[in-house]
Amino acid sequence: MSDHPEAPVTPVEAYEPPYCVAVFTAVRTEEQSGCSETEARMEDLVKNVPGFLGMDHAQTPDGLGITVGYFRDADALTEWRTNAEHRAAQKRGQAEWYRSYTLHVAGVERSHGFTRA
Amino acid sequence: MSDHPEAPVTPVEAYEPPYCVAVFTAVRTEEQSGCSETEARMEDLVKNVPGFLGMDHAQTPDGLGITVGYFRDADALTEWRTNAEHRAAQKRGQAEWYRSYTLHVAGVERSHGFTRA
Repeated sequence: MSDHPEAPVTPVEAYEPPYCVAVFTAVRTEEQSGCSETEARMEDLVKNVPGFLGMDHAQTPDGLGITVGYFRDADALTEWRTNAEHRAAQKRGQAEWYRSYTLHVAGVERSHGFTRA
Repeated sequence: MSDHPEAPVTPVEAYEPPYCVAVFTAVRTEEQSGCSETEARMEDLVKNVPGFLGMDHAQTPDGLGITVGYFRDADALTEWRTNAEHRAAQKRGQAEWYRSYTLHVAGVERSHGFTRA
């Protein structure tokens, strides 16, 4: 039982495979002007992509961010990757916000979830 | 240029596909006794698995942790999954440390990295 007053933290669930996962790990620069606004806008925008399943994000105190996006299939991920506003954000990220980043795109073959009874 | 005195943050690099990724998202309970020690032990232990490529971890202030492990192939991941000490840690995690978790196991098909010039 939780006695947390706020909404419970709920990571993206284990969907039935196959589906796609994109793991984006980024190290930030010290120039973060406009970054959080753009991230919030991207979070809204990706929800409009048909086949988008969900996204989780976490960050270490020393500036490593991990964002994991889940998509029903490669077409859904391609639609997101090539979205014009998302592409503009990617360019700005390279120019200003990220010291480095890595993207791993993968097909999920197996998944499972556990929830405490 | 960085003037950080500590070691630079370096996420796992983009390897040449195919390789495997395991995304583990977990929501913690309030009972965390022994958890960080076990995590540190698991971080040491997984490095001995042949085909282990690396691991990134980050956590939100409200208790969502994302751990992403990278392995050369399914055999390497199976060796880690079935490691006796790791299995004991998994059981203890279910019993004590995690309110819920989700595991997504996937085959990486595409990857790329960016590093600021």
